Amino acid sequence: MIDDAPPLLAVRGKTAALRLPAVAVVGARNASAAGLRFAERLARDLGAAGFAVISGLTRGIDAASHRASLGSGTIAVLAGGHDHIYPREHVELADAILAQGALVSEMPFGHEPRARDFPRRNRLISGLCAGIVVVEAAKCSGSLITARFALEQGREVFAVPGSPLDPRAEGTNDLIKQGATLVTDAADVIAVLRPILGKPVEFRAEEPEAPAPGAEPDVGERARIVALLGPTPVPIDDLVRLSGSSPAIVRVVLLELELAGRLERHGGALVSLL
Amino acid sequence: MIDDAPPLLAVRGKTAALRLPAVAVVGARNASAAGLRFAERLARDLGAAGFAVISGLTRGIDAASHRASLGSGTIAVLAGGHDHIYPREHVELADAILAQGALVSEMPFGHEPRARDFPRRNRLISGLCAGIVVVEAAKCSGSLITARFALEQGREVFAVPGSPLDPRAEGTNDLIKQGATLVTDAADVIAVLRPILGKPVEFRAEEPEAPAPGAEPDVGERARIVALLGPTPVPIDDLVRLSGSSPAIVRVVLLELELAGRLERHGGALVSLL
Repeated sequence: MIDDAPPLLAVRGKTAALRLPAVAVVGARNASAAGLRFAERLARDLGAAGFAVISGLTRGIDAASHRASLGSGTIAVLAGGHDHIYPREHVELADAILAQGALVSEMPFGHEPRARDFPRRNRLISGLCAGIVVVEAAKCSGSLITARFALEQGREVFAVPGSPLDPRAEGTNDLIKQGATLVTDAADVIAVLRPILGKPVEFRAEEPEAPAPGAEPDVGERARIVALLGPTPVPIDDLVRLSGSSPAIVRVVLLELELAGRLERHGGALVSLL
Repeated sequence: MIDDAPPLLAVRGKTAALRLPAVAVVGARNASAAGLRFAERLARDLGAAGFAVISGLTRGIDAASHRASLGSGTIAVLAGGHDHIYPREHVELADAILAQGALVSEMPFGHEPRARDFPRRNRLISGLCAGIVVVEAAKCSGSLITARFALEQGREVFAVPGSPLDPRAEGTNDLIKQGATLVTDAADVIAVLRPILGKPVEFRAEEPEAPAPGAEPDVGERARIVALLGPTPVPIDDLVRLSGSSPAIVRVVLLELELAGRLERHGGALVSLL
């Protein structure tokens, strides 16, 4: 449901949790006691209202949100492969999530998460949900990256206010100034998301058609399309026009390249070679 | 500059302070340490930016705002007469305000403030300012009454956010949900008010013309107009139409009644006998 969707997602646990309407609850690792308490209350109430709670399994707000929604279904999006849970201290929490929820990763088995995998992972947290609630966030924090992705993806952005003297509220107060919905209660989230409950998340971009079964590029087509690609992102539409191949064939070639780890997808249906 | 403006205001101190563009800073009496610190910072920065800071001389946020803006000009609106400073412990603060600022009251000398005088007084706090900042406020608190007056009077309403777990932030978070501008810094206030700096506050209602000099009701006119009045609020326009007197004459009679303490003015140019 996002522009630069991964070619596949590896899921462990109950895939049913992925079919619930979902809200991401994210925030600071070094959260305050009040922030943790609020995240728990919010995640529990959202779970009771029928939402899956999505987060990133990190310390602080993320872990508190997962714990409070274990019984109703919670989804953790990993930055590494399924055999590299990060942080290590949350291996048990990850196991507990499997009972009613799911662990999701776009990374291959064996992939150890690096620093740059986390912002990349955040686009999946926002992409999987109808709305994202930022509970506590300093300026320039990872949660704000997730909020930016959410905006680009047309998801609802919610933020929990805090004292102007609390640096952990700078990011969330800024989000509210920029138009995010102020949240003091799960009801604030539900009131906005109820109209889309039960319906699929609205797409901003058009959903790509599935490649026609049997569409199989020949050697010449494949070479022409690869030759059109380089490190500079180009629109997929241009590849179709310039290669003379059908959109379905172009998509198959791009998928092959992506599975081989040679393609990078950008926002706005742009792609480049890695 | 408000619908139910008092017929006169008694002012002590520097009337020059009343000609500065003004911002009201109000909030809880039982303010938190963080709330008090924020109010001080805000009032100091607004004073440095050329605004008079208006408040109600009560404990907590009000007193902190006055203290931080003593040097730049602060205005306290009293609920009682000038010889009945409330609370008593702020007599010294009131004296300190006179150096660069002013004390304002619509009540006669000798009037001891009663509970119902405080909400009534609050319409003057909002009426004297271009915008009002609510720093901390529980649900149903007096500061929210002032914010409601400000909205009715077409003033800008600002509110300082706080944790959803802090009952002293319930009122301010609610105000933001209802459309008040979130404030973390004096710059947030100045950005909204700068366009009206140096210009008079915009009037919602039309400014009444001053009574024509020499307009003097005769005994019959006066009796006819008083007879049209009762405890039910009626539009001044109806009084003009039904009495057959000129608008100027009707205004003079109403002013006489008001000075005698027999008239109450309501919103929307309605009046009733007391």
